[in-house]
Amino acid sequence: MNIDSLVENIKSKNRRALARLITLVENDDVQTEVVLDKIYQLTGKGYRIGITGPPGAGKSTITNNLAKILLAAGKTVGIIAVDPTSPFTGGALLGDRVRMSEIGSNEGIFIRSMATRGSLGGLNKKTNDVADLLDAFGYDFTIIETVGVGQSELDIVKTSDTVVVVIVPESGDTIQAMKAGLMEIGDIFAVNKSERPGSENAVNAIKNMLMLRDRSSNSWEPPIIKTVAHENKGIDELINHIEAHKKHILDNNIYNKRKNKQLHTRVKEIVETKLITELWANRINDATGDDVLFEGGTSPYKIANEIINQFKANF
Amino acid sequence: MNIDSLVENIKSKNRRALARLITLVENDDVQTEVVLDKIYQLTGKGYRIGITGPPGAGKSTITNNLAKILLAAGKTVGIIAVDPTSPFTGGALLGDRVRMSEIGSNEGIFIRSMATRGSLGGLNKKTNDVADLLDAFGYDFTIIETVGVGQSELDIVKTSDTVVVVIVPESGDTIQAMKAGLMEIGDIFAVNKSERPGSENAVNAIKNMLMLRDRSSNSWEPPIIKTVAHENKGIDELINHIEAHKKHILDNNIYNKRKNKQLHTRVKEIVETKLITELWANRINDATGDDVLFEGGTSPYKIANEIINQFKANF
Repeated sequence: MNIDSLVENIKSKNRRALARLITLVENDDVQTEVVLDKIYQLTGKGYRIGITGPPGAGKSTITNNLAKILLAAGKTVGIIAVDPTSPFTGGALLGDRVRMSEIGSNEGIFIRSMATRGSLGGLNKKTNDVADLLDAFGYDFTIIETVGVGQSELDIVKTSDTVVVVIVPESGDTIQAMKAGLMEIGDIFAVNKSERPGSENAVNAIKNMLMLRDRSSNSWEPPIIKTVAHENKGIDELINHIEAHKKHILDNNIYNKRKNKQLHTRVKEIVETKLITELWANRINDATGDDVLFEGGTSPYKIANEIINQFKANF
Repeated sequence: MNIDSLVENIKSKNRRALARLITLVENDDVQTEVVLDKIYQLTGKGYRIGITGPPGAGKSTITNNLAKILLAAGKTVGIIAVDPTSPFTGGALLGDRVRMSEIGSNEGIFIRSMATRGSLGGLNKKTNDVADLLDAFGYDFTIIETVGVGQSELDIVKTSDTVVVVIVPESGDTIQAMKAGLMEIGDIFAVNKSERPGSENAVNAIKNMLMLRDRSSNSWEPPIIKTVAHENKGIDELINHIEAHKKHILDNNIYNKRKNKQLHTRVKEIVETKLITELWANRINDATGDDVLFEGGTSPYKIANEIINQFKANF
């Protein structure tokens, strides 16, 4: 089936066409750009919720239960579950998508797991592309669930309208690391598995860090809630805070500014990825070049300049 | 003073010349490449130890005590302490270089703190450049201490000959995240502050993860040690393991392979950084372009292609 008919079919809510287009985008098919260009004018109506936090914090369970409540309220929900894999072993960090199956058969929901092989930049690009497809299809909400293990969790702010940071009482390292960015991107904080000891300490640690945050007029005060996701405790409260944050950013014209900033960041990433890909594709074609350049103790900067000059000479 | 005299002066062990060249490299001076090209043939004699782990694990204290013991053994030591700052607030993640001052006045040691404003890629490049300067100056060991809060800690393997991963008994999230890479880069693991409860559990958790590691013949079995750095406990043992690892990689021809791989990675990063820098520098000169492109609901891929075409047209 060609791209045009697939795109026509997602306009008429054909889930199989959606699944095929997502696969195409995920596999970095050469037609990705054509697809994304064609569906772009259909996007912009859905709302994007990002769920991030350390491995084992219970993000899947929260995502699962959030989706159920939204469904019960008559909304449709797309879910992108991002599983970064080790750049070394290729093993999946999270394998617990099984639990998702209980809601996966519902017509109002669409779940896609995405794995990557270490390239977090590329992952962010693909997450954006898939979120656009879900948005174009017409899902009211897209939930993007991603494991935060450092810089990568900061990427979620480039894609989401509301970011929920999930930790557990034991997340000492993560709370420390929040100083380096996670704190700044969280619109809502959830201390999950809060039946365990230390949850009050975790709430206070986040509270103290949030006091260091920059304040401006109309600025949002991120709520910190306690949840026990596997017992569905606190999820209603979480949804209320998400709705309140949505209202806040729409009322204060933050939503459009955020979208515009996201577009700029996204274009920047696409440009850089394309240029770098083209650069190294050219090198591979140049079968003899690499070895010669790296011989004889030449300084890395001299080698680099030679490679750049060869690249430019090919334009 | 010109570059040539500064380079001549580091050959004659002038520490002020070294400090000035490091500052120049840190500030991304246009002459960075000239300096690095000139000193490159002086490098390759020193040994590089990377110390990484979550914030608050005691990496500075370990670095400090390691340096003291090496000094006492008649070795000279350069230290690069990398403090990534938040891409949002610019606040320093670690401010405890003060403790370093007790050893900083020793002639056999040179300490440099490096901060960054969010660009971890650029940070890795600068760390390499500064390590080259310390190596060229003639320091027997260069210790690179860097806060690991995700992908960034994986960078240390691109610079170091031996990587020490430091955690604390409470580092539950970090041990989880190790599945995603940290485990693969550690040559030695230290559970610091091991007087606290849970240290045996932390050792076992690492042990279990290491069992999943790929094995090949001649492969190194990473030791897991317990330290109490602020009481100087376990540091002798750590040095013994570092020496053993050094011997292992030299005896098994791993050292040269590692260096060669590091050179390739480094050249790749330099090429990409330079090309991307040039790309956006051109855009800023093009005062009217940006706004027009981003208007009118054009798809991000269309905007990106237009920017790339404009860039190429300028060659």
